Amino acid sequence: MDTGSSLAATVRGLRPVDRAAAAAAAARLDRMTKPPGSLGRVEDVAIALAAIAGHCPPPVPEPAAVAVFAADHGVHAQGVSPWPQEVTAQMVANFCAGGAVVNAFAGRVGAQVCVVDVGVAGSLSPASGLVSRRIAAGTADLSRGPALTRDQATAAVEAGIATAAELAAAGHRCLLTGDMGIANTTAAAALICAFTGADAAAATGRGTGIDDATLAHKIELIAAALGRHRPDPADPIGVLAAFGGLEHAAIAGFVLGAAAHRIPVLLDGVNAGAAALLATALAPAATGYCLAGHRSAEPGHRVALEHLGLTPLLDLGLRLGEGTGALLALPVVQSAAQVLHDVATFDTAGVAEHSPS
Amino acid sequence: MDTGSSLAATVRGLRPVDRAAAAAAAARLDRMTKPPGSLGRVEDVAIALAAIAGHCPPPVPEPAAVAVFAADHGVHAQGVSPWPQEVTAQMVANFCAGGAVVNAFAGRVGAQVCVVDVGVAGSLSPASGLVSRRIAAGTADLSRGPALTRDQATAAVEAGIATAAELAAAGHRCLLTGDMGIANTTAAAALICAFTGADAAAATGRGTGIDDATLAHKIELIAAALGRHRPDPADPIGVLAAFGGLEHAAIAGFVLGAAAHRIPVLLDGVNAGAAALLATALAPAATGYCLAGHRSAEPGHRVALEHLGLTPLLDLGLRLGEGTGALLALPVVQSAAQVLHDVATFDTAGVAEHSPS
Repeated sequence: MDTGSSLAATVRGLRPVDRAAAAAAAARLDRMTKPPGSLGRVEDVAIALAAIAGHCPPPVPEPAAVAVFAADHGVHAQGVSPWPQEVTAQMVANFCAGGAVVNAFAGRVGAQVCVVDVGVAGSLSPASGLVSRRIAAGTADLSRGPALTRDQATAAVEAGIATAAELAAAGHRCLLTGDMGIANTTAAAALICAFTGADAAAATGRGTGIDDATLAHKIELIAAALGRHRPDPADPIGVLAAFGGLEHAAIAGFVLGAAAHRIPVLLDGVNAGAAALLATALAPAATGYCLAGHRSAEPGHRVALEHLGLTPLLDLGLRLGEGTGALLALPVVQSAAQVLHDVATFDTAGVAEHSPS
Repeated sequence: MDTGSSLAATVRGLRPVDRAAAAAAAARLDRMTKPPGSLGRVEDVAIALAAIAGHCPPPVPEPAAVAVFAADHGVHAQGVSPWPQEVTAQMVANFCAGGAVVNAFAGRVGAQVCVVDVGVAGSLSPASGLVSRRIAAGTADLSRGPALTRDQATAAVEAGIATAAELAAAGHRCLLTGDMGIANTTAAAALICAFTGADAAAATGRGTGIDDATLAHKIELIAAALGRHRPDPADPIGVLAAFGGLEHAAIAGFVLGAAAHRIPVLLDGVNAGAAALLATALAPAATGYCLAGHRSAEPGHRVALEHLGLTPLLDLGLRLGEGTGALLALPVVQSAAQVLHDVATFDTAGVAEHSPS
């Protein structure tokens, strides 16, 4: 383990976003040839990007890369998903072959796809674009005991930190989260409940599509696991060890790593939301580096985003994961930065301002 | 006037979108390596694009062009906007110089900007990217009489049809609407009320930012104009002549022209919404070729979209116009089509399907 990827060193090195740069961006937006505030949420994003970069105008966040962290879940054995567990490994192969939605979207918006195995249960064939950072062959069943040991939990977070460092070193200036793991919305819901105090019923959804009976079973199982593990949100690694998953851990580390490099991180759906809660519990300043790409159809995602104070850019009813929602939001984020570079001010463009009201 | 751009010929030639191609797209989406329906609204867009193109998969709608139709409004004299009327001409110069938000966004998403003068009051210097299709030096004051003659109204619609034909001939396969015209939200609100039956108070907003007193004055003025002109929605050219504006007319024609070429048209904000109501009144099949890029902060936009049965892709609180909201939605639209081309099916990718529930 190189010290640069250690969790403790990363958390120590993390600085809050720059409020002065944010104020400079807000002032600059008000001098531009448009009615003040008329770009709505896009102005918020431009201001956030300046705060993250620490100067105004911030660089346009490109090139971008989406890291798809893949792992399996012991709780799959409890029948919380209609999909066989092998689908995780099969979809990893599909990502590497370029045949999934994440590939189609990434191609459109000019992002690189980096697939990271942090704990797929089945065996994976080596493939181009596949990075192996395996911690375990999936988590243990959270309904019967802890999903991970504390050491595994920390190592999985550090796998995400290392991934962010590697992508930053390769020149990427916008990092997007992605995930793949059959049954991972069960772990996500448990993490969200543990960090926000929400009830299992409020944070648990249908994932990729389960019927009413399976949803009731999933809620009951999560409520029982919360009662059994009695997670302490002040001990984030303990919470993570209780529920997993390895991909949630890695995404949290990815967020921390991006923040340590002052690179904006664009969050995908409910699994990213759970991971961002974990990252924020480990280092509160991390939230300032996060932008919520979209709000998924999963109810726990709303709970997570509200707790984080993040407003999603898109709300298209997506419930796929893989990084798809983050990818669709990428052009909005890049456009927000571009405004701060390109748009003329009233004085330079010779455009009259409105009369004082 | 070439016959190809005449309103009557365009309306006669317009065909409904293709329901069989839509069904083929829906079936194809359900065979792809993702849970059925998990792309939410993106699946609706993919299906709409197939229906518009008349085959599945539909071409990815590129290259794209945004036409920014600029014009002035006689009702400006009634103090409905805090901005001087000269700003319309000044912003046209700013668009042509590349200094406006529409330019920054178009550059990011790879769209060409085409600025069309359909009736700016001031004199405009010739500039690269500026197309002159002037019908009048702005409309007459809708609060004192008809904004346009019926002949002017028809000619302005035909200017939009000709613009669409020209961009289609240049190879563009996705057309985006844009507008610039100080005081144009007043005309938009009147058009929306006339076509939907909404009250002036429900359809009138603050445009680029007016205070409470100006808003009350604007609502009163629109309500009085509706009472005076007694517009008949079954006579769309009569409604248009009553209220203008020239850019709303041209955008309606642009929608009809795109539809006649089976090219998807991505609508911007409230002015596009008003124009789409006009286009639909002229040719009901036109709506099928429209995608709503975003919902603006203007209340009349919601009224217009609901009447059209269009659900906006983005909701970012934009209230700028220029085509900015349509441009931010363009990558979502193109990504939707890309899915139908690129994503593997369960059988070809060797991915297991979920068990029957």
